[in-house]
Amino acid sequence: MTRRDSATARGSGLGVDRPGTDPGPGIDLSEAERRARCAWSRLAEPGDAVAAKLVATYGAVEALQRLPGLPEGAPGGRFGARLQALDVDRDWRRGLDVGARLVIPGDPEWPGGLDDLAVPPLALWVRGPLPVGVACARSVAIVGARAATAYGESVAAQLGAGLGRRGYAVVSGAAFGIDAAGHRGALAVEAVTIAVLAGGVDRPYPAAHARLLEEIARVGAVVSEAPPGAAPMRQRFLQRNRLIAAMTQGTVVVEAGLRSGSRNTAGTAAELCRVVMAVPGPVTSMSSAGCHEMIRSGMAALVTDTDDAAEMLGAIGEDLAPCRRGPVHDTDGLDHLALRVRDALPAGAGSAATRLAEVAGLGERDVRAALGRLELAGLARRDASGWRRGP
Amino acid sequence: MTRRDSATARGSGLGVDRPGTDPGPGIDLSEAERRARCAWSRLAEPGDAVAAKLVATYGAVEALQRLPGLPEGAPGGRFGARLQALDVDRDWRRGLDVGARLVIPGDPEWPGGLDDLAVPPLALWVRGPLPVGVACARSVAIVGARAATAYGESVAAQLGAGLGRRGYAVVSGAAFGIDAAGHRGALAVEAVTIAVLAGGVDRPYPAAHARLLEEIARVGAVVSEAPPGAAPMRQRFLQRNRLIAAMTQGTVVVEAGLRSGSRNTAGTAAELCRVVMAVPGPVTSMSSAGCHEMIRSGMAALVTDTDDAAEMLGAIGEDLAPCRRGPVHDTDGLDHLALRVRDALPAGAGSAATRLAEVAGLGERDVRAALGRLELAGLARRDASGWRRGP
Repeated sequence: MTRRDSATARGSGLGVDRPGTDPGPGIDLSEAERRARCAWSRLAEPGDAVAAKLVATYGAVEALQRLPGLPEGAPGGRFGARLQALDVDRDWRRGLDVGARLVIPGDPEWPGGLDDLAVPPLALWVRGPLPVGVACARSVAIVGARAATAYGESVAAQLGAGLGRRGYAVVSGAAFGIDAAGHRGALAVEAVTIAVLAGGVDRPYPAAHARLLEEIARVGAVVSEAPPGAAPMRQRFLQRNRLIAAMTQGTVVVEAGLRSGSRNTAGTAAELCRVVMAVPGPVTSMSSAGCHEMIRSGMAALVTDTDDAAEMLGAIGEDLAPCRRGPVHDTDGLDHLALRVRDALPAGAGSAATRLAEVAGLGERDVRAALGRLELAGLARRDASGWRRGP
Repeated sequence: MTRRDSATARGSGLGVDRPGTDPGPGIDLSEAERRARCAWSRLAEPGDAVAAKLVATYGAVEALQRLPGLPEGAPGGRFGARLQALDVDRDWRRGLDVGARLVIPGDPEWPGGLDDLAVPPLALWVRGPLPVGVACARSVAIVGARAATAYGESVAAQLGAGLGRRGYAVVSGAAFGIDAAGHRGALAVEAVTIAVLAGGVDRPYPAAHARLLEEIARVGAVVSEAPPGAAPMRQRFLQRNRLIAAMTQGTVVVEAGLRSGSRNTAGTAAELCRVVMAVPGPVTSMSSAGCHEMIRSGMAALVTDTDDAAEMLGAIGEDLAPCRRGPVHDTDGLDHLALRVRDALPAGAGSAATRLAEVAGLGERDVRAALGRLELAGLARRDASGWRRGP
């Protein structure tokens, strides 16, 4: 669903528009629309294609009104069981209680990239002061294995800090290992970071990262497609990964085994034409095997540091990584003949040009010309004994 | 110069053809030709374009005959100094004394790949029982930094052994670090290996590798474009590198700094349309920085092991590396709905299908159908309390 499509998803007009706001043509930010999407976030599992289709067809409000009468076999019948237990007021209060707001398509802080998904989220619950959509306009996902190595965590933290310093919001999933290291790298340099959770924004997961998530909610944003209170179930992690891929301009996988969830994130990023990057590591480390496979297959570009990643993420011609040349040698720029004569020069007692010609396998004229160039470059000098190496 | 061109390089007929040999049309394997090329290997530096051009134009024998009269300024005048000191009989004997033979274009053991070079060698000095050309028909260069890490040496040794076992001759430069590890890996599995030296085949370089080179000369081949006794000078290393690139089907760079000589080898391999491969390593290791740069720029393909390298070297569709899938999970192959129901199943006391429908956000019919599939897969079971996870 694109932003344009949300025109067709306009509510039935039941809601009361907030006074003084004009969100633009075709965008429904009415209270009824917001409440309906709050309801949908409870009724439909993240990534539920049937719910997305119903909302795209009828709008969130009307689609909700159509649900009760649907027979169990009809599309939408699947929501019957949850509809019985639905209490929008309670969900809404619960969000407020944990300091969360509901962000819906058309809101200024809706991350536009989400609309590129085949099944975009119907709403996002957000905790934290960061306007998510604005931050995501220049953002990067740093993801990877939970079972990361010290090497991987160190690289992820450096990327989080380096890309954060360059003004990229660092988006990840707050998991053990690479995710947390990426967030922490950004936090360490007071850069912007966003944690996207599989369960509710009030349910820190993993529990050991409760403090990390509190810190992110204090300065950045903690985001979820699932309503407050929702448990982090396995399928929700995969759906969560698609959000991370879609809301950013690119995804860097720092370490990944051959079946890492971060490969799933990278796959979605590739489908959505986002920049996909992977950090190499020792070929002896299974924690880098997924990264190597992604590079080998052409799915991901190899990046070694912030410069590389910024070059990939930046506009063409901008943010180019510095050309890596290695050390400069004093023989740089010398022609082939001069290099051969330089090789032939003795370090100790000097040689005559005729002798150098034999050693270098060159004519005397060539040798004399080359000696002139070498002398100018400080690479040859002449004394009573003849020519030898420069100081 | 291609093999075809060596027809135009035919000697002047001064030589005596060996009785009973018919090397084929346009190939001159006469004694005179061989002696002339022996002289050229002394007169001309490896990679000397003027010598190559003279030999290509007049043939080795006639080009040699034309040299004495040339003024110093003429092309070929550069060989005057060495011509004074030339003693072909002495050089020939010196080769025999160290157990070396002179291999020239047209010999069955001439590595055909060398003819792809812009400035092909005029002859090769070879020590060791291995027919070099035959061995090079299935060969790979394993090259890299002298200042290698334990990681790099271990990977190089594994590649040397693995590719050696698969019937590839392992070609390298016998240098410290990666080169020696590649040779040793091949020797360890009694595979074929070839050392290409910058100096004479009788001058072990580095000296610390004298025993390694003796072993290679005993079972494989030690090769040089420079004549016996020639010192390993700096420019000769670069020229040596071009031979390694040209005589093999592909080059693997295992570790390389940003200015490693092995990048030069890889560059020649790329120019000659050979397969260029690089092994990644930790991004924190400067010994891998050259490899990463080559992969990042698209010059080299990333390879992690023998399987990857063999796939790159092999004919299309042959020697494919096994698809790396990671561990197989019991939920593989289940559809999206079944996965959602499986997530909703309690581990302890069972749930009714209606309850599962609410938890999974699905219709009861979908849940019952999914439960059937899960039960078949052993992932769900039913008892008096309802449905729960399989054993």
